[in-house]
Amino acid sequence: MIVEIVSTGTELLLGQIVNTNAPYLARKLNEIGFDAVYQTTVGDNRTRMSNVLAIALERADIVITSGGLGPTQGDITKEVSAELLGRELQLHEESLEHIRSFFARRRLTMTQNNIRQAMIHEGAIVVTNHRGTAPGVIIEHEGKTIIHLPGPPIELEYMFEQAIIPFLANRFGVQGVIISKVLRTIGLGESTMEERIRDYILAQNNPTIALLARSGEIHVRMTAKSYSEVAAKMLIDELELKIRERIEDHIFGIDEQSLEQIVGEMLATRKLSISLAESCTGGAVTARLTDVPGSSVYLTGSIVAYHNRIKTSFVGVSEEMLNHYGAVSPDTALAMAKGIRGLFGSDIGIGITGIAGPGGGTDEKPVGLVYIAIDGPTGNIVEEQRFTGQRIAIKTRTVNATLELLRRYIIR
Amino acid sequence: MIVEIVSTGTELLLGQIVNTNAPYLARKLNEIGFDAVYQTTVGDNRTRMSNVLAIALERADIVITSGGLGPTQGDITKEVSAELLGRELQLHEESLEHIRSFFARRRLTMTQNNIRQAMIHEGAIVVTNHRGTAPGVIIEHEGKTIIHLPGPPIELEYMFEQAIIPFLANRFGVQGVIISKVLRTIGLGESTMEERIRDYILAQNNPTIALLARSGEIHVRMTAKSYSEVAAKMLIDELELKIRERIEDHIFGIDEQSLEQIVGEMLATRKLSISLAESCTGGAVTARLTDVPGSSVYLTGSIVAYHNRIKTSFVGVSEEMLNHYGAVSPDTALAMAKGIRGLFGSDIGIGITGIAGPGGGTDEKPVGLVYIAIDGPTGNIVEEQRFTGQRIAIKTRTVNATLELLRRYIIR
Repeated sequence: MIVEIVSTGTELLLGQIVNTNAPYLARKLNEIGFDAVYQTTVGDNRTRMSNVLAIALERADIVITSGGLGPTQGDITKEVSAELLGRELQLHEESLEHIRSFFARRRLTMTQNNIRQAMIHEGAIVVTNHRGTAPGVIIEHEGKTIIHLPGPPIELEYMFEQAIIPFLANRFGVQGVIISKVLRTIGLGESTMEERIRDYILAQNNPTIALLARSGEIHVRMTAKSYSEVAAKMLIDELELKIRERIEDHIFGIDEQSLEQIVGEMLATRKLSISLAESCTGGAVTARLTDVPGSSVYLTGSIVAYHNRIKTSFVGVSEEMLNHYGAVSPDTALAMAKGIRGLFGSDIGIGITGIAGPGGGTDEKPVGLVYIAIDGPTGNIVEEQRFTGQRIAIKTRTVNATLELLRRYIIR
Repeated sequence: MIVEIVSTGTELLLGQIVNTNAPYLARKLNEIGFDAVYQTTVGDNRTRMSNVLAIALERADIVITSGGLGPTQGDITKEVSAELLGRELQLHEESLEHIRSFFARRRLTMTQNNIRQAMIHEGAIVVTNHRGTAPGVIIEHEGKTIIHLPGPPIELEYMFEQAIIPFLANRFGVQGVIISKVLRTIGLGESTMEERIRDYILAQNNPTIALLARSGEIHVRMTAKSYSEVAAKMLIDELELKIRERIEDHIFGIDEQSLEQIVGEMLATRKLSISLAESCTGGAVTARLTDVPGSSVYLTGSIVAYHNRIKTSFVGVSEEMLNHYGAVSPDTALAMAKGIRGLFGSDIGIGITGIAGPGGGTDEKPVGLVYIAIDGPTGNIVEEQRFTGQRIAIKTRTVNATLELLRRYIIR
């Protein structure tokens, strides 16, 4: 069953907006075993869109379009396909009523243009839009299926989940199962990771293996296709075992688990509270930790000690230390960790100091030099890192490194 | 001059990776006046790729492909186009030498497979890959131009800037100039914004107008095309004046200027220092402020007062106040603002308290209720916000609202 996704909209062609509908549809189709092997983008131009739809109907069994169902003159998808298929557009009273009440509920005036949205191909299945005005349309035509969906992701996604997936599954049956599993790692670069599991990557077939770099983490994604979920899972389990043997140390979670979530669970389980004294990260580590629901159970609080005056007055760094070792030094980081731990009375204290740049670097202490210290019930550690990149990248890497060091500190 | 972008790679079809090459190429082509009116994605499948390339060569003048130039058996772009065009692939010694030295410099062994990367269509222009191994290829064929570029964005983008843009400009001339200007606004919803400038949006032609929602900000992008930069700028200036009349209050910056950057400049110019007591945002406001280089000039420091104990012991919230009004109240927010201002001795103090959820909400104080207080040399203000959405969205909206309130406080 060959599927083609046709994304319409001149705004997509300009490259200023990234097309998220096509990857969404492809992913969802894949989950029920359909392959969107052609994906085309075309602007709001009658001739070109008609050309694209004609080609799609020739080479694919199912054509799914997104966009061009709005009320403006630029929204032409239905007109173009109606002409191409030789089917008239007729007013669909129920859809018009839906649009009317949509406007009424919001106390807005419906324009004459909105009536265009209720014009539907004769003999088509109408899909109600629970998140907006434009209904979706399913047309069965000479052995092919054409599905028109609205462009706004919130409308398209809801409609696809609620109506299109059930329709496809009923009409064509589920075409096998594809499942993915992601091993999330930290502390290995992309090329080192690739070297470690190169033989598996080169020999990949089913499951496939993909490495994805995501702000300091490397994700290993395994995707297997089989006739049943259990069979697909078995294929993944087998590969996962082999890959884990090579990189186990660096795997902190799977699928959607974030580093802050994993670390948070470890703190909660062990009933450990934590506080941080952050300098170069400006509170970003604490912000990440508090992204996790329930983090108030283990996070006492933090001080962003940006000015040296805050370091000396509040988090236990002495003037002598600052003068002797400097604000960016292992000694200062450790003093901050101990200082905040004592001040806030938490089980674990973390101190972070570094040079995020672009200014402030010297030959001896370049931009990207960072010290992370942890002080807690099992003693303390201080880590030196030398990151490269721009200011925000250095901050992000420092946040990741801190969370990873904390993870290692807890399990050591 | 019609351009088609063909993105190849089965990984793109699965929707797990978002295609960033096509929007990049479209944007860059646009800047020199070329319209990529068709954009197609196809997997590493000979028949389908050949079909896609044949259609592209028929309807477009210039076809640009990305991907499929690697060393593996799945990399077939050049083979497919060679067969389609009836041109042989020949070993290009210089490219082979480049690949050899690439491996030698990294002390890696070149595999037999890499030789495939040096196979080039007869009569083609070879484009050196300064960021990787696969050379790019430009083929002129029966009045059409086919350009093959490697898939990794870092390689593709470098090659496009360095070699393809100059080639296109030389060969076809720059096709007019397209420029964009973005007005960045905050404090208006997307639909309110649309209502305010609906007549301009409906009447748009050249310049075009696009509204983009970006984590709490609404960006109004105007794009004009003309024969010269000055002429295009004039078109934009004219429209900008009209739009500003309607939404001036909400525009905080243009193009790439971020809210934290604008606010930072205002603080620096006025020589105002600032400190924050953050609760529900967990340090995220301070983290955003410190994303700006040089923020140490005005940011003294912050306390993330997550536990009530930290609120009472450090940032001036009394036990009585907590018991009487609760941690999430205008009184507590203002006490935090005053408390941190006094404690850290800064000109301005900010206090933020709210319920980020998903737990902790009540009928009276639901998830999303947030109080932001500012205390400073011109008095104080407290703002109540009721945000909807998930935890992280609520945090992000609170960060934006805080920065915006600070901007208004400074200019009031």
